[in-house]
Amino acid sequence: MALIVQKYGGTSVGSIERMRAVADRIAATRAEGDDVVVVLSAMAGETTRLVELASEASKEPNAACCDLLVSTGEQISIALMSMLLADRGIEAVPLLAHQIHIHTDDNHGRARITKIDDDFLRELIGQGRVPVIAGFQGVSSTGAITTFGRGGSDVTAAAVAAALGARTCDIMTDVDGVYTADPRICERACKLSRISYEELLELADGGAKVVHTRAVEIAAAQRLSLRIRSSFSDEEGTWVIPEEDIMESTLISGISANLDEAKVAIRSVPDEVGVVARIFEPLARAGINVDLILQNLADDGRHDLTFTVPKNDLKKALAHAEGAARVVGAGRVEAAGDIAKISVVGIGMRSHAGVAHTMFETLAKDNIAIQMIGTSEIKVSIVIDAKHAELAVRTLHKAFGLEQRADGEVSRA
Amino acid sequence: MALIVQKYGGTSVGSIERMRAVADRIAATRAEGDDVVVVLSAMAGETTRLVELASEASKEPNAACCDLLVSTGEQISIALMSMLLADRGIEAVPLLAHQIHIHTDDNHGRARITKIDDDFLRELIGQGRVPVIAGFQGVSSTGAITTFGRGGSDVTAAAVAAALGARTCDIMTDVDGVYTADPRICERACKLSRISYEELLELADGGAKVVHTRAVEIAAAQRLSLRIRSSFSDEEGTWVIPEEDIMESTLISGISANLDEAKVAIRSVPDEVGVVARIFEPLARAGINVDLILQNLADDGRHDLTFTVPKNDLKKALAHAEGAARVVGAGRVEAAGDIAKISVVGIGMRSHAGVAHTMFETLAKDNIAIQMIGTSEIKVSIVIDAKHAELAVRTLHKAFGLEQRADGEVSRA
Repeated sequence: MALIVQKYGGTSVGSIERMRAVADRIAATRAEGDDVVVVLSAMAGETTRLVELASEASKEPNAACCDLLVSTGEQISIALMSMLLADRGIEAVPLLAHQIHIHTDDNHGRARITKIDDDFLRELIGQGRVPVIAGFQGVSSTGAITTFGRGGSDVTAAAVAAALGARTCDIMTDVDGVYTADPRICERACKLSRISYEELLELADGGAKVVHTRAVEIAAAQRLSLRIRSSFSDEEGTWVIPEEDIMESTLISGISANLDEAKVAIRSVPDEVGVVARIFEPLARAGINVDLILQNLADDGRHDLTFTVPKNDLKKALAHAEGAARVVGAGRVEAAGDIAKISVVGIGMRSHAGVAHTMFETLAKDNIAIQMIGTSEIKVSIVIDAKHAELAVRTLHKAFGLEQRADGEVSRA
Repeated sequence: MALIVQKYGGTSVGSIERMRAVADRIAATRAEGDDVVVVLSAMAGETTRLVELASEASKEPNAACCDLLVSTGEQISIALMSMLLADRGIEAVPLLAHQIHIHTDDNHGRARITKIDDDFLRELIGQGRVPVIAGFQGVSSTGAITTFGRGGSDVTAAAVAAALGARTCDIMTDVDGVYTADPRICERACKLSRISYEELLELADGGAKVVHTRAVEIAAAQRLSLRIRSSFSDEEGTWVIPEEDIMESTLISGISANLDEAKVAIRSVPDEVGVVARIFEPLARAGINVDLILQNLADDGRHDLTFTVPKNDLKKALAHAEGAARVVGAGRVEAAGDIAKISVVGIGMRSHAGVAHTMFETLAKDNIAIQMIGTSEIKVSIVIDAKHAELAVRTLHKAFGLEQRADGEVSRA
C-alpha cells in the first residue's frame, strides 16, 4: 500500500461525463489498496470564461481580485468530483488552499508556495478519506487567495506529493507521455518511458509543455517521482525521475521547437565595460526573460548584440532596448518575430562530444541557416527561421537515431 | 457620516454592465461621506447553472459539496465588483466568509449564523476601505463552507449590519419597495414608505417575498433599520422599522396571496385524545411545515382534519398522512393543490375589531367561498379556490381602503 497523488487537468474534468470516468479511475486506484490524494484543475473552458469576465470588467484588473475570481474554477471541480466520489462510496473531502495552509508569497497570478501544512492531510488519509484538493491556488500572508499561473495545478500536485512523501505524483493529462519530439510535427516521434528532471526542464524550456516547469523543479529538489499519463487510457506514461536512476542513458532524449520567442538586435554597441549590463538592466527590472544572447564584434570595434525574449514581451522589450540603445550610444534596434528555437536535449550529451557538430551538419544539408546558438550542459539550442522549424525537428529526430526507439527501443533503462 | 450596509441582489449584478452601475452607486454613497459595506449575491443565473451541474453529477448531491459549489457564485461577484471599485479609486477588499469569521451551524444548505467576528471589518472600515462581502455563505465548525438557502445574501447583510451597528441595511433589489399588494395583480397597489418587522414577516409568510425572512428576524431582534430599495432607481424605497416607530398606524398595511401551498384533508378521524398529535408527529419529523389547520366535528362523533403544507412537500405529506390515517383508524385522505392563501396584515388590527368580518363580507359579495381560516395577532388568512386569488386581492385591497394611499396617503407616520 502506497500513497499516490493524482492530478487531473482541465480536459480530464471538462464535463460531468469525463469527471465520472475520473471518479471511476480514482475508485479503481483505491480498490487496489493505495491511498490517493486528488488534485484538480478547473473544467476546460472555465478559466477562460472567468478571465474574459475580468477583461470585460476592467482594462487592468486588480491581480488579487483576478486570483479570487479564477480560483472559483478549481473550487467547482473539487465540489463536483467529491459528489461523484461520494456516490461511489468514497469519503471524499474537498479542500481549498486555506484549509490545508498552502502558504505562498504575495505575487498574485504567479505566486510561489512557501509552505504546506501536511498534518491535516495526513489525518484525513489516516481516516481512510480521500482529500480532493483545488489546484492552482494558495493563500498569501494576508489570507488572500493567490494563484500559480496557467498549469499551476501541476505545482500544487508536486508540492503536496513532496510534502506527504508520496510514492509518486501522477500528472493525468490529455497526452500519454513525453515524446522524443512533438508527434503532431514528427510522426515518427516515440514516447519515452523515462526521462530525467533536467531533460524535461530543458525540453519544456524549448517549448514542449506537458507539465508545469515548477512542478518538475519541486519534484527534482525533493527527488519525487512524477509520472505523465493520459487520463483517457491505462498506458504507463512517462516517468520523470532522478538522472542516476536512468541506468543506461541514450545520447539524446528529445527535440523541441519553441515558436514563442522573438529576436531583438541592437546594432553598433560601443565596446565599453558595463555596456551590456546597462542594456539588460531595464529588461530585467521589467521582468522580461532574456534567453539566448549573441554578441558579434564588428570591424569598427563596435559590436552587434542580439537576444531572444518571449514573443508576448516583444513590444515592451523593444521599448526598453531602444531606450537603452540611446543611453549607451548604440545604433538602431531591430526585431524579428518569425524565428524558431530548436533544442536538442539529453543527459548523455555530457559524455559525448559532437552533438553540436551533428546538429550543424544535419541542418546544413537541408540548407537551414543558423542565426544563433546557445548551449547548456545537456542542451544545444539554435535559432532558425520559423518556416524551417518542422523540417528541422524531423531531420534532427532522424539524425540522432530517435526513430529507432519505435522498434522496441523505447525503454531507456 | 454613518455606516451603511448595502446588499445587491442577483439581477442587480446580473451582468458586467449592471455591476458598473452598482459600482457607480457605491462610489456615490462614499462621495456623500458615508462608510459603506457591500454584500453581494451571485450574478443572476449563476446559482442555477451551478445547481444544474450538481444535479447532473448526482441524484442526491452531498450537501456540503453543494455549498462549496454554489458559493463560488458570490465569490465571482465580489471579485468583479472589487475590480470595478478599484477602477473608481475605491480601495475595495473582497471578503469570503472565513476571512471575517461568519460562523454557522453545520446545516448545509440552510445554515444559521452563530457568530460574526466584526473586528477585521471595523479595522478595514477604519482604514477607509470598502469591504465587499460574499453573501449567502458562512463557515461551519469544521471550516467547511455553508450556505443559507436561496436569498441568503439578505441574511448576510442583516447579520453584518447588526454586528457593526450600522445605521441602516439597504436591500437593493429589482423592486422599489414593499407594496400594499402585488402590483402585478393589483394595479392600484401602493408602495409603503414604512412597515414594521412583524408585518413584513407576516406578508412574506403570505407569499410576498421581497426579502429573506431571517434577515427581517435578525433586524427585528437587533432593532436594525432595513430599507428595501430598487438598485435601478434613486427612490426612497420602504423602511422596515420597529413597530413603535410607526407613529400612527393604519389598520391594514398589505394583502398577500400565497399560491405555493396545498391542502390535505383526512376524513373521519376518531375523536380520541392524542389522535391529532399522532397524525402531525411524522410530518414534523419529516420537516414539513404545516400551516393552517382546520378541524370539523361531524355528526358521527368523528371529525375531518384539514391542513395546508408547502406544495413542494405535498407528495411527502400525503404519504405520511396516509400512513398516519391507517394507524389511527381514520378514513380516506384527500389533497388539493389548487388553493390560494390570502392574508390581510396590519399592526392596527390589534386595536380594531371587525377585520375578519369585513373580509368575509367582502368575499361573500363576490361569491368567493372560504375553505379555511387562520388568524394571528396582526394577520387574518383565508384559504380559497386558486382561481379566485387575484379577484380576492383586488376586492380586499379596495375594501380596506388601501387604494386611497395613492392620493398622497402613502406615508404611515
